[in-house]
Amino acid sequence: MPDIRIFETVEEAKTTVLQRRSLDEMDASPQAQTRLAELFGEPLTPEQAVARIIADVRANGDDALLAWTYRLDGAELDSPIVTKAEIERGWENTPRELRQALTTAADRIRAFHEREQHGSWMDWQTGEALGQIVRPLERVGIYVPGGQGAYPSTLLMAAIPAQVAGVPEIYVVSPPARGQDTPANVTLAAARIAGVTRMFKVGGAQAIAALAYGTESVRRVDKILGPGGLFVVLAMRQVFGSVGIAGLPGPTETLLIADDSANPELVAADLLAQAEHDVLASALLLTPSRRLAETVQKEVAEQLAGLPRHKIIAGSLARGCGIVLVRDLDEALELANEYAPEHLCLLTEDPWSLVGQVRNAGGVFVGETACEAMGDYIVGPSHIMPTGQTARFGSPLHVRDFLKVTSLFSIGIHTLQQTGPQAATIADAEGFQAHAAAIRRRLRGT
Amino acid sequence: MPDIRIFETVEEAKTTVLQRRSLDEMDASPQAQTRLAELFGEPLTPEQAVARIIADVRANGDDALLAWTYRLDGAELDSPIVTKAEIERGWENTPRELRQALTTAADRIRAFHEREQHGSWMDWQTGEALGQIVRPLERVGIYVPGGQGAYPSTLLMAAIPAQVAGVPEIYVVSPPARGQDTPANVTLAAARIAGVTRMFKVGGAQAIAALAYGTESVRRVDKILGPGGLFVVLAMRQVFGSVGIAGLPGPTETLLIADDSANPELVAADLLAQAEHDVLASALLLTPSRRLAETVQKEVAEQLAGLPRHKIIAGSLARGCGIVLVRDLDEALELANEYAPEHLCLLTEDPWSLVGQVRNAGGVFVGETACEAMGDYIVGPSHIMPTGQTARFGSPLHVRDFLKVTSLFSIGIHTLQQTGPQAATIADAEGFQAHAAAIRRRLRGT
Repeated sequence: MPDIRIFETVEEAKTTVLQRRSLDEMDASPQAQTRLAELFGEPLTPEQAVARIIADVRANGDDALLAWTYRLDGAELDSPIVTKAEIERGWENTPRELRQALTTAADRIRAFHEREQHGSWMDWQTGEALGQIVRPLERVGIYVPGGQGAYPSTLLMAAIPAQVAGVPEIYVVSPPARGQDTPANVTLAAARIAGVTRMFKVGGAQAIAALAYGTESVRRVDKILGPGGLFVVLAMRQVFGSVGIAGLPGPTETLLIADDSANPELVAADLLAQAEHDVLASALLLTPSRRLAETVQKEVAEQLAGLPRHKIIAGSLARGCGIVLVRDLDEALELANEYAPEHLCLLTEDPWSLVGQVRNAGGVFVGETACEAMGDYIVGPSHIMPTGQTARFGSPLHVRDFLKVTSLFSIGIHTLQQTGPQAATIADAEGFQAHAAAIRRRLRGT
Repeated sequence: MPDIRIFETVEEAKTTVLQRRSLDEMDASPQAQTRLAELFGEPLTPEQAVARIIADVRANGDDALLAWTYRLDGAELDSPIVTKAEIERGWENTPRELRQALTTAADRIRAFHEREQHGSWMDWQTGEALGQIVRPLERVGIYVPGGQGAYPSTLLMAAIPAQVAGVPEIYVVSPPARGQDTPANVTLAAARIAGVTRMFKVGGAQAIAALAYGTESVRRVDKILGPGGLFVVLAMRQVFGSVGIAGLPGPTETLLIADDSANPELVAADLLAQAEHDVLASALLLTPSRRLAETVQKEVAEQLAGLPRHKIIAGSLARGCGIVLVRDLDEALELANEYAPEHLCLLTEDPWSLVGQVRNAGGVFVGETACEAMGDYIVGPSHIMPTGQTARFGSPLHVRDFLKVTSLFSIGIHTLQQTGPQAATIADAEGFQAHAAAIRRRLRGT
């Protein structure tokens, strides 16, 4: 039976389980590599393969989009568009209880994000009006993974904040479910609940290219958001600049900090929940308690046996998961800030006393009741959060991601007279005499 | 004498002067290409050259950083660090009047950005505490161009919003002034005024690599901001993800909308001010008035003769500048929104009546007094704004660029009991039974 490993020293953990690979260090799996070589007739890196796919879709539009969907996802489509009838059918084929659960989740996500403040402002002083006009983006594209799995929660967690921001056109792309020609029913049901404008049954780098540059069926969007696999993220990086990219999502991570007061059964359950995402997922426990570490290790082994995804979990346990013994909670916090996890869960006697020390984390889950699995589905804040240490500078997906600012400049004669000469002095110093002239001509006119 | 061209139809302008090249379509100049071939011993694209420089700095730290500074900027340095003494010397060697002008500019930039709202919030409901913790980034790197020119205003426009956000460590990188071993005095003076933490006398892709990955002298930063040339921007795109990148700045653009009421002398002066930045700069006038178009054309030719940078201006006039005749102001606004300019200047009889129609622009300058040159130096809002149509999704540099969000999740037993079963239902539907188990184990405990 696979074990979750206990690291006796922080130093050892730092050189192993706390290390993350950057996007450029990630390889396609051996199977994917073989497949790439077959598809392109020569061995290509994922980066090169993605560049070719993007160039093809950019040049050949829908034809290329559908051809790549056939080659990579095995679905033979006439059009990339998910029709209204298909969405209705997905809704009808989704069990009532699940539809209600998704609706509740949608309501809570909306309620949370509506509390964000993001208004325009203006400040009128004597003869001056300066401010920031804050407006929603006009068209955004949300990537929802599909194929093997179905992620209606991800659709809700991205589309609803976009809607709260006031984005008039919300596109969703998602690859067809394995062996079908649309995304899964439950994903279609979520699209209906979220009220997305248009959905496309395509995924991968080809879908990112279509969103970035447009095709006959897909109008190009202003920004692309959402999680995806290696090809999707490499494509996002390649189109960055032609289109807005909120972040480059990587494998998911959870870091738990727990002390002797924690319930080992629940700590183990949380580690396993995180580890089941995929074999690249990281589930880490930092604890000063050897007793807790050992009990959790046993619990993990016991609970694992009964879980359907035990193969995937065993895969992640062998890679990016582990229990690290720390000196005390201060050291745990320090390590957590350095690691900058996507999710940080505090399962200690007094979790609130630690919140102020958290500097880098996508989301902080305070106490035993607020487990990450609840946050993944229903608490309210979007579950799309910065991974791979990008919580150093990135934020969870939020309403602000769907807004843009225009600065407003209006000054009167008084400000011009008072500050114009100084502006012209700086312009001269920068060697921009035409700038200085534009100001001085105005000063002469006053 | 070079002319600013008048385009009789919008269609013609759309296929010529209103077209912009994407980052991937930009070539190095023939001289730069020859230089690259010499430096690398083989012809490389700018993208490839940048990748090599980044890899070298990443592997070899300061040694590589200084070697590239020598090869590309001609400065032989012992250390990339600008010392305090060098900054003091720069300050002392900057004329008093210029120091005062920069200080006034700094005060106004600070006053504007302090008015931005960006606080954390929390909402306590029965047994729930949800919210967003908003915190400053810990270390940011600001790129200030140098070499041939000096841009103290850019330093102020980036560093002061960072300071207002509360960023504790603000790094500035700027290449040495031509023939010197530090940036220009006036840039050093601006660094002193803005109170930057540390300044480095390096530029180009090598400086971006040092900020992204760190060297012995440069600690890696969390986010890089500021304008730069082709190599700098390509480097920003390549390191995106390892470090935050606010946007990919391109050549500067100004679009003026003017009617018969506008003063042709000032319109011409504004077009020339914009055209003097560099030969890639775009200065465009949209007007329904043929009379204004023709008078401005004459004024441009006349004013140009007396300007020191007339060669650069002639270069941009021949490329991305022009006067486009439109049917009416509505058509001008429509075209402006499609073009999404960095700067949009409204020189019409009633400019405020047009502001509501502006959808895509970095900054909007309302009326004749609020000219862009004033905004470049002293009005207050940062002059670093989205270019190359990225105003569709990007914003001017503002305080928010220096902040990050952590979502706060805390729920009580009541919320768990009420929504936990539904969360577990969705988890089951997604095939994440360990997620469902983590929730159900908690429900059993209540």
